[in-house]
Amino acid sequence: MNAYKELIELYKDIMVWKGIASIIHWDFETYMPSDATSQRAVQIATLQELVHEKITNPRIGILLDECLQDDMSTGGNESLVKRNLHLVKREYDRATKLPSGLVAKIAKQSTIAVAKWKVAKKKGNFSMFKPELEENLKLIKEKAKYLNPGKDPYDVLLDLYEPGVTAASISSVFKPLRSGLMKLVKRYRKNANDAAYQFLSREVPMAQQREIAHRLMEFLGYNLKRGRLDETEHPFTVGMYKDVRICTHYHLNNFMSSVYTVLHEAGHALYEQNIPERLWWLPAGTSCSTGIHESQSRFVENIMGRSIVFWEHFLPIVKSITGNTFSDVDVDEMARAVNRVTPSKIRIEADEVTYSLHVILRFELENDLIHGDIDMDELPTVWNEKMDHYLGVTVEHDSEGVLQDTHWASGLFGYFPDYALGNVYDGMFLENLEADEPQWRESVASGNGEIVTSWLASNIHEKANLHDPLDLVEEVTGKDINALPFLQYLDSKMDTIHGI
Amino acid sequence: MNAYKELIELYKDIMVWKGIASIIHWDFETYMPSDATSQRAVQIATLQELVHEKITNPRIGILLDECLQDDMSTGGNESLVKRNLHLVKREYDRATKLPSGLVAKIAKQSTIAVAKWKVAKKKGNFSMFKPELEENLKLIKEKAKYLNPGKDPYDVLLDLYEPGVTAASISSVFKPLRSGLMKLVKRYRKNANDAAYQFLSREVPMAQQREIAHRLMEFLGYNLKRGRLDETEHPFTVGMYKDVRICTHYHLNNFMSSVYTVLHEAGHALYEQNIPERLWWLPAGTSCSTGIHESQSRFVENIMGRSIVFWEHFLPIVKSITGNTFSDVDVDEMARAVNRVTPSKIRIEADEVTYSLHVILRFELENDLIHGDIDMDELPTVWNEKMDHYLGVTVEHDSEGVLQDTHWASGLFGYFPDYALGNVYDGMFLENLEADEPQWRESVASGNGEIVTSWLASNIHEKANLHDPLDLVEEVTGKDINALPFLQYLDSKMDTIHGI
Repeated sequence: MNAYKELIELYKDIMVWKGIASIIHWDFETYMPSDATSQRAVQIATLQELVHEKITNPRIGILLDECLQDDMSTGGNESLVKRNLHLVKREYDRATKLPSGLVAKIAKQSTIAVAKWKVAKKKGNFSMFKPELEENLKLIKEKAKYLNPGKDPYDVLLDLYEPGVTAASISSVFKPLRSGLMKLVKRYRKNANDAAYQFLSREVPMAQQREIAHRLMEFLGYNLKRGRLDETEHPFTVGMYKDVRICTHYHLNNFMSSVYTVLHEAGHALYEQNIPERLWWLPAGTSCSTGIHESQSRFVENIMGRSIVFWEHFLPIVKSITGNTFSDVDVDEMARAVNRVTPSKIRIEADEVTYSLHVILRFELENDLIHGDIDMDELPTVWNEKMDHYLGVTVEHDSEGVLQDTHWASGLFGYFPDYALGNVYDGMFLENLEADEPQWRESVASGNGEIVTSWLASNIHEKANLHDPLDLVEEVTGKDINALPFLQYLDSKMDTIHGI
Repeated sequence: MNAYKELIELYKDIMVWKGIASIIHWDFETYMPSDATSQRAVQIATLQELVHEKITNPRIGILLDECLQDDMSTGGNESLVKRNLHLVKREYDRATKLPSGLVAKIAKQSTIAVAKWKVAKKKGNFSMFKPELEENLKLIKEKAKYLNPGKDPYDVLLDLYEPGVTAASISSVFKPLRSGLMKLVKRYRKNANDAAYQFLSREVPMAQQREIAHRLMEFLGYNLKRGRLDETEHPFTVGMYKDVRICTHYHLNNFMSSVYTVLHEAGHALYEQNIPERLWWLPAGTSCSTGIHESQSRFVENIMGRSIVFWEHFLPIVKSITGNTFSDVDVDEMARAVNRVTPSKIRIEADEVTYSLHVILRFELENDLIHGDIDMDELPTVWNEKMDHYLGVTVEHDSEGVLQDTHWASGLFGYFPDYALGNVYDGMFLENLEADEPQWRESVASGNGEIVTSWLASNIHEKANLHDPLDLVEEVTGKDINALPFLQYLDSKMDTIHGI
């Protein structure tokens, strides 16, 4: 047990340093004076170097070996000890298997590729970016090989963000999801310029938007003694346990943008705040995966935040804050507006129904790219054909097509699917919420958002990183992952809101 | 030269870490969620431990030896190299000469003593605090002995904050300062409750006070691309080079408090911002001393900020921001109000004339305490007698007497004199400003505050830590330190403002 104790101490130290780095990052994004960028870059690099050094400390390898040889009779705590050892080993292996030369090469290449991508995107010229994408792919495949030479490289990459999933298991979920969503798009598709939605662009002054944000946080039970709300260009959530901060952005003529950003980020933040204290500073006292994290933000943002009952409660609050601005809008109109289905070329502007189709397209192309099943010159054409097929939109130039996202430029492959997996998990979780709290809609309508966030806390947040994501889903729902509940939820909601 | 280069790299790394720690500290004081205190305490302790480890890295000792044996022919850069080596050696010696057991003991004891001091202060009961003060003194003398067994212990402590000064050299400055100030107090003493000053407590809303603060920063040329202004209970300045932040506090019925806090802290901040880039990350690229730092904040706050010409420029601005609040106040009345001489029992409420007398009293008592020249039981009585003698005020209980400051409780001895040394330096610097920029008053009156801050930049800030403080003063003024210029400046100003 001494080796285990020492290991856990080393892990806690790493977490403390990650916490320090997260505050420095938060400050960089929020309040740092504008001229301090290069000074801060040195600080960030220095912190990253220290954390990397600590994660790859050979002592961890020695202690892991000792612990794994041991029978680890720990007095009834075996499963937690086993999980902690598994998680430390996973992180240690990932960090130590890569030669430092390759790590440096990837870092350098991704900086170059992002810079090239920015120019190429501006010019709408994919061929400018093509050589960098090819180089990124070459390096990422090399990385996958080092991490696990015996496994399919795309599966290795997927496992980094969503441990346990494979391209095959995702495909079996995404195929029915794709056809189901395509049907829903056809059925509920609306014109984004419909006059019925124009009230969303009415001006709402910043001070009013700030008040709306605070009422939202209150409604969710997001504890500001353990968190903050600030403003950034690109909203994010950062921190852990008693210090978890969210950011939003206010657009004068699009107040709904901040409403759903706050709901989304607070969904992430509640997850981190609700990790149970008995697991703090342990490997198992972290979040489970990227996909599960997305499921928590999207449950709050979409399943609760785009429900009719939410607006039954919250529209009067918006009206009381904004004076006469929305006095002519009723709950049904608001629900229709925030649930309109309007296929877009741009993923980050997509609605709840079309969003996952954007993701599925990227998953399919990533899979083909990694396996060399697609001619790089054909990539923009294939992209555009899929957009036309799945969403019925016509991409006119690469900036609004294959060049729109930064992910591939920065070397992120295998990450996209998690956005849609979050939605799929949510459909399944919703079935359980309905069973456990059949009155949840009435409660939300009467202003009790915590009936939902408490359920998420007990069923997801408090399980922290005790299970890999698919096991967690099975433990919560008793079922294997499948897209049907999400499709049924969407169909039923859209039918109620947009049906005849 | 290789040893020197490596040493400088090690020093830069330490500075980067101190910069990281300063942001974490700033966040703690400004925006950290209230429940995160214990989580943050772990982060701060972890950072301190790392910095201490790096400062005491034995490799520094080895490299210093190599460099000092070397003839260091550095191609014309000898004096900078020599200074850098001197400063690294000074810090290394201070950090390594103390046994870690003593460091831990002092840290623990100061926590206990501060806690006891808080209770004792609340109860106005010195005898409760006496045992802790005795223990603090014992430990601080032990510390001084380890640092330099051959030198007077109080001189060792003074040298920590103001390198090169001794109790004897301070005494020779403080004696004439004391008698000069006592004369000025008698001559210009006013009643604090004078109806003529009551307008200072008129209510100024926070938003107006914030605007006033921004106009002050603009006037000084404090660059917000390299800094920030935030609000804290206890204002401070933190950071370096391109990221130097100040804090203030707004009191609804005392707007002048924030005016002079902003001027004071911005004076500190300009010093750090103006360290020349060629010295960045070098030992010589830091500030010179506590006393010189205080001189820079006080020059901006007092010499410029309490001048008649400053208010000629700034009163119209205050009036334009505050509506009718001060429409009946003229420049002379304002200058009289911010320059009133009203002896107080509390140091931090003291005015420009009486402030240094509070400091001199503490210097005299510290000196006696360290040398055992005073019976501890007599301390409150001696304090009160001196207060009566120097300032003509009657201390009624220990809370407003010997227990008012936190310094001795937290183990800070030898620090107090620097507040008054800052004033003394300022008197000398002012003579040079008058000679170099004879039109400075007219410029300030017409809104050009940078005529003063630029002079401070060229003459003080840009010399960074190239000299010890008394050498810097000699280099700037051509004179040895003496209190006469400060006394003359005060007498002349007070005569103009309060004279018949």
